[in-house]
Amino acid sequence: MTKRVGVIGGGQLARMMIAPASELGIEIRVLAEQDGMSAALAATATGDYRDLETVRAFALDVDVITFDHEHVPQDVLRALIADGTAVHPGPDALQYAQDKLVMRAKLAEIGAPQPDWAGVSTREELQAFIDEHGGRAVVKTPRGGYDGKGVRVIGSADEAADWFDAFAGERILVEELVDFRRELAQQVARRPSGEMAPFPVVETVQKDGVCSEVFAPAPHASERTIEIAARIGTEIAEALGVTGMFAVELFETTDERLLVNELAMRPHNSGHWTQDGAVTSQFEQHLRAVLDLPLGAADPVAEATCMINILGGPAGIDIDERFGAAMRAQPAAKIHTYGKSARPGRKVGHINVVGDSIDDAVYVARAAAAHFE
Amino acid sequence: MTKRVGVIGGGQLARMMIAPASELGIEIRVLAEQDGMSAALAATATGDYRDLETVRAFALDVDVITFDHEHVPQDVLRALIADGTAVHPGPDALQYAQDKLVMRAKLAEIGAPQPDWAGVSTREELQAFIDEHGGRAVVKTPRGGYDGKGVRVIGSADEAADWFDAFAGERILVEELVDFRRELAQQVARRPSGEMAPFPVVETVQKDGVCSEVFAPAPHASERTIEIAARIGTEIAEALGVTGMFAVELFETTDERLLVNELAMRPHNSGHWTQDGAVTSQFEQHLRAVLDLPLGAADPVAEATCMINILGGPAGIDIDERFGAAMRAQPAAKIHTYGKSARPGRKVGHINVVGDSIDDAVYVARAAAAHFE
Repeated sequence: MTKRVGVIGGGQLARMMIAPASELGIEIRVLAEQDGMSAALAATATGDYRDLETVRAFALDVDVITFDHEHVPQDVLRALIADGTAVHPGPDALQYAQDKLVMRAKLAEIGAPQPDWAGVSTREELQAFIDEHGGRAVVKTPRGGYDGKGVRVIGSADEAADWFDAFAGERILVEELVDFRRELAQQVARRPSGEMAPFPVVETVQKDGVCSEVFAPAPHASERTIEIAARIGTEIAEALGVTGMFAVELFETTDERLLVNELAMRPHNSGHWTQDGAVTSQFEQHLRAVLDLPLGAADPVAEATCMINILGGPAGIDIDERFGAAMRAQPAAKIHTYGKSARPGRKVGHINVVGDSIDDAVYVARAAAAHFE
Repeated sequence: MTKRVGVIGGGQLARMMIAPASELGIEIRVLAEQDGMSAALAATATGDYRDLETVRAFALDVDVITFDHEHVPQDVLRALIADGTAVHPGPDALQYAQDKLVMRAKLAEIGAPQPDWAGVSTREELQAFIDEHGGRAVVKTPRGGYDGKGVRVIGSADEAADWFDAFAGERILVEELVDFRRELAQQVARRPSGEMAPFPVVETVQKDGVCSEVFAPAPHASERTIEIAARIGTEIAEALGVTGMFAVELFETTDERLLVNELAMRPHNSGHWTQDGAVTSQFEQHLRAVLDLPLGAADPVAEATCMINILGGPAGIDIDERFGAAMRAQPAAKIHTYGKSARPGRKVGHINVVGDSIDDAVYVARAAAAHFE
């Protein structure tokens, strides 16, 4: 009998589950926020994921509920579970991806390495943290931030004054500004029955708070770094009870420590390289994991893969024409599109290039990506 | 604007176009023979591909018509073209895949290497051919054969007596029984504007007339064989005006010649390895070619890939359970399923394994495939 996976959210992460679902013989159904979204091909319902009855009706005839994003409210998730629906990742795990203060406290409890942090309710507390940490710090809204939104580097509590007004009564997260050499990301798949499969740690490059490039596996990473990253990923996945794909964004500090920056409990931009560069893609692995099927091999298929995101450019640009030009110029570039209109700064696709060396892969990927600038 | 490809036929070849179409941002629509077929996810119409009005209605709002099989009648194809519809491959090319006598005559005309052959109308003519060729020969029905059906090895014209009765007035194809060392397959993609991209030649193993295993690239093939195979593929594709994916099944003789056995003008079983083993899969390449988009790189991503077909076993077997067992035992095996019920002998999926050597890949692929025996 064909297994049916219900995905809440119709974005590109849901869309990219369609290809492996089709190959594995899994039926994928999507609850999209509106018509014409990225995952429209598999959309069987449209509606508000915050509305219990909408989600409940969608969940009726699937074997498991999973997600394109982490924003489904806890009370909706817990009601589904009370109904007897399998939900992966479940609400106990998802709370740590939904609230960064809850996440920081949990990571402290399990002893995971992370930057100094505090939850602050007043400007005075915030200024005291800044003063204790060299005069600069990072403030984050605990909930709802993504792609650099809800994150600010400040030198004075005054620069977060509007947040204290807007989130009156709630605490704001403040973190030490880490002196990092580069950013890494560690992905792990975990099944409900406990099996885990870590992908190799990768290097990520952010531009304006948005993931721009990924080099996989992380170039010049020491054996020790590779092993510690995998251990951090698997230990947190286990401690938090994550099921499905799990990503840990890490800082590699100038003194060679790894510190946890962010967590994501879904397929993640840092893992798009696996579609062309790994034996099992993160999207296939996510489907296997949430269905509690045996996990696939997480090894790279080649020496190196480079992923570059494609952002929507200035209005009036014909994105299809640019895809055609990139295909013509770089036949080895694997182009993945999200079927989204090309608003400036919006992720509309990505390019993967697999190569014998990371330098070769980066060269070809950037040449292809240049057609979108 | 999203390009729309209409595929006539709802089998596994149409199904396997869904994944790359989704990634490339191509909308795929399928005219399926009935409900619940392999490509059901993309089926937008159901009906008889021999009925002009059915096909015409389906073709109304797509940019190009292509195929899951080669059986759409010439008059239907020519009516579509008269309507102004782009059809790839077109009827002029498809006639050579639809009628083996027409194919043999054309290959003779262009000087492609092939076995001795004749079109025979009587038992006497057939017996004369057999006598001239060492007492054994292969007879084929010119139209409608596949997977060993419509093919017979005989030692006497009497063994084809039923065909002379059934196809009274039509000629039967008879071919010399080639003393071959092994079978190879050469695939080439060709765009309407003329660009071509050959995949590396592969070795195919048939069991009971059905493709059983593929080793890619063909192990121990000499530079000369590789080059001649590619030249045969590209020259025939050009001479016949093929557009889309084109496959030439070849005999490698014991005296190291290559002879054309069969032609296919669509994605082909011998190219399933490209889904996991090549930069561009044959299904992505077919979509690019029929839309006249630039072709992708046809290079292997690793040293070797082994493909093994999965056939439906004895009735009553739970195919999903077997897939689960294969996934558990062989995490590096890439399993592709067709969403078909598992009738004995029916192709229901395939397994690809990419490796550092063909021996390693074959070992893992056979271990995975053993779960289906």
